[in-house]
Amino acid sequence: MTQAEMLMSQALRLAEKGLFSCAPNPAVGCVIVKDGQVIGEGFTQPPGGNHAEIQAMADAAAKGHDVRGATVYVTLEPCSHFGRTPPCADALVRAGVAKVVAAMIDPNPLVAGQGMARLQAAGIAVESGVLEGPARELNIGFFTRMQSGKPWVRLKVAASLDGKTALHNGLSQWITSQAARDDGHMWRARAGAILTGIGTIKEDNPQLTVRAVQLARQPLRVIVDSKLSISPDAKILVGGGNLIFSAVVDAEKQAQLEQKGAEVVVLPNSSGKVDLPQVILELGKRQINELHVEAGSKLNASLIREGCVDELLVYLAPAILGDGRGMFDLPALTTLQDKFSLKFHEIKQVGEDLRILARFH
Amino acid sequence: MTQAEMLMSQALRLAEKGLFSCAPNPAVGCVIVKDGQVIGEGFTQPPGGNHAEIQAMADAAAKGHDVRGATVYVTLEPCSHFGRTPPCADALVRAGVAKVVAAMIDPNPLVAGQGMARLQAAGIAVESGVLEGPARELNIGFFTRMQSGKPWVRLKVAASLDGKTALHNGLSQWITSQAARDDGHMWRARAGAILTGIGTIKEDNPQLTVRAVQLARQPLRVIVDSKLSISPDAKILVGGGNLIFSAVVDAEKQAQLEQKGAEVVVLPNSSGKVDLPQVILELGKRQINELHVEAGSKLNASLIREGCVDELLVYLAPAILGDGRGMFDLPALTTLQDKFSLKFHEIKQVGEDLRILARFH
Repeated sequence: MTQAEMLMSQALRLAEKGLFSCAPNPAVGCVIVKDGQVIGEGFTQPPGGNHAEIQAMADAAAKGHDVRGATVYVTLEPCSHFGRTPPCADALVRAGVAKVVAAMIDPNPLVAGQGMARLQAAGIAVESGVLEGPARELNIGFFTRMQSGKPWVRLKVAASLDGKTALHNGLSQWITSQAARDDGHMWRARAGAILTGIGTIKEDNPQLTVRAVQLARQPLRVIVDSKLSISPDAKILVGGGNLIFSAVVDAEKQAQLEQKGAEVVVLPNSSGKVDLPQVILELGKRQINELHVEAGSKLNASLIREGCVDELLVYLAPAILGDGRGMFDLPALTTLQDKFSLKFHEIKQVGEDLRILARFH
Repeated sequence: MTQAEMLMSQALRLAEKGLFSCAPNPAVGCVIVKDGQVIGEGFTQPPGGNHAEIQAMADAAAKGHDVRGATVYVTLEPCSHFGRTPPCADALVRAGVAKVVAAMIDPNPLVAGQGMARLQAAGIAVESGVLEGPARELNIGFFTRMQSGKPWVRLKVAASLDGKTALHNGLSQWITSQAARDDGHMWRARAGAILTGIGTIKEDNPQLTVRAVQLARQPLRVIVDSKLSISPDAKILVGGGNLIFSAVVDAEKQAQLEQKGAEVVVLPNSSGKVDLPQVILELGKRQINELHVEAGSKLNASLIREGCVDELLVYLAPAILGDGRGMFDLPALTTLQDKFSLKFHEIKQVGEDLRILARFH
């Protein structure tokens, strides 16, 4: 690792501290270095609060350091536009730093290189592309939304080594270990929204809240419920703020659910089911960067068939269940060419289980 | 890594060279060091040929080195008994080496520490336990057989990420990549025997030979065929030497198969099927160290249910097949406590696929 990579690693670790609280903004970390010393550190605060660069400059000032002539390591190009806060590029220019090293250029069309250009125009040395891969991964949802208008959709499945998510009688608590379940909550926590289907609600009545991780805000809980048949007493509605996608208009039921603090959006497709690609787009419009799916084999299959899933997050337990329920309720293929192809992205052992990230593209 | 571990690593790499040819002997490697220089190397030759220590001493002599006063690194305790060859411990004593470092004590009851004792009695310094873990893995079949009389049973499955080994219509060529299939041949090659069932023979008519690896000998091909219904024209019988386990006596069919060079062993259990635990014991008696199973979901399930499997070798392709055939045709469980539990032993990416070794104990 070069010196620049070590400092960018430190900035990435800072960025991770904002991962559960900064949405819909990207999680960014910043380290300011002068005379070989780290003089300031910061990471993105919740929306409306400081971006990482401003935090790091404030940290340096609070410790009595002068950032003039310093080098700034930041995991994403400094912004150049007025959003909830003024442009960070301008603040860096005013502060008189000598150099800015960014892990990557911001794909947000409102920035897209203009932050670096503004710095350069002010005589500040700039560099980008240091640890770009990990920086991209950290905010994969934000970048996907900036480029496609859609969130990054991650579908979670917990199964035995022989691909079974439950016994034939429906029992599934628990196939994977506590460590894997806690890890699953970490992925829920970094998502802007968690999506499930009416089948899972009727069968398991889950809360779908994040409990294993301390959070200031809970992800939006989204329900696909074509017939709007959810019970107003479903646990997932406790606390309010749910978003329910339906394929039918039912004013009475809708009013009942709205009283529970839920919002109902009617988005039917031509088959009278919820239009899943439209759901994904709608969530993108609502600034969801990462959508975490925990659903049953039917909704899982529909999402995959309709091209709505970017990534599978599969926990495999070292166990064999034999006859039982599968991951995806997809119809039989007639040739292997029709299989859904992925690429393994990351494999990790979590407790006694295996965690597999596999991507469709 | 210490100096001793580096030299033992070198001895282990030599041992691997004998892995496909030394059965039923263990694959052993040996490095002889004098004055900080490696002066001789060797590994176990095919049965009746030299053991690793004798090879390494001959190598040193051929290169004009004198092994007197040298240190010998060997991946298994030198033998102390007369087998097909005289005891290596005696040869080391006669050669006047100063020290013998063994990765592990030989669990073979004919040796079991006596090799080291004989060396020590002759004034040679001895040490053991250097890289014992990898040394044990390399000959896990031999050690299992020495301790239990049974081979190490490794069951291979190739499946999609959702646990399907074939489409509903039976198509399975190919779910995994060429790299994974070649890797599979490597595991076949190190096995003393490959076992399959009559279902696989009727459906796929495989040869079950090792083709992706150059071999002096092919593993014994074993067939479980309760009703002795195999066709004498089955490809697996080409070349002869097969072992067929049946649950019925059928003198005429048996004669037909014997003409093809096969041997039929009748081993019925009380349900009129082949007694699988007895098959495993019989293969142990025939000095099979590692048994490689490539069978269908029914025989796979029976072997697991009857406690005959030590390890699963699972290749997972990054693909989803949906409705299709499962790995193990086991009846539905009623509680999760009844699941078959394993431990993940090793995970590796092979080509675009994932290779999982999981053990039952």
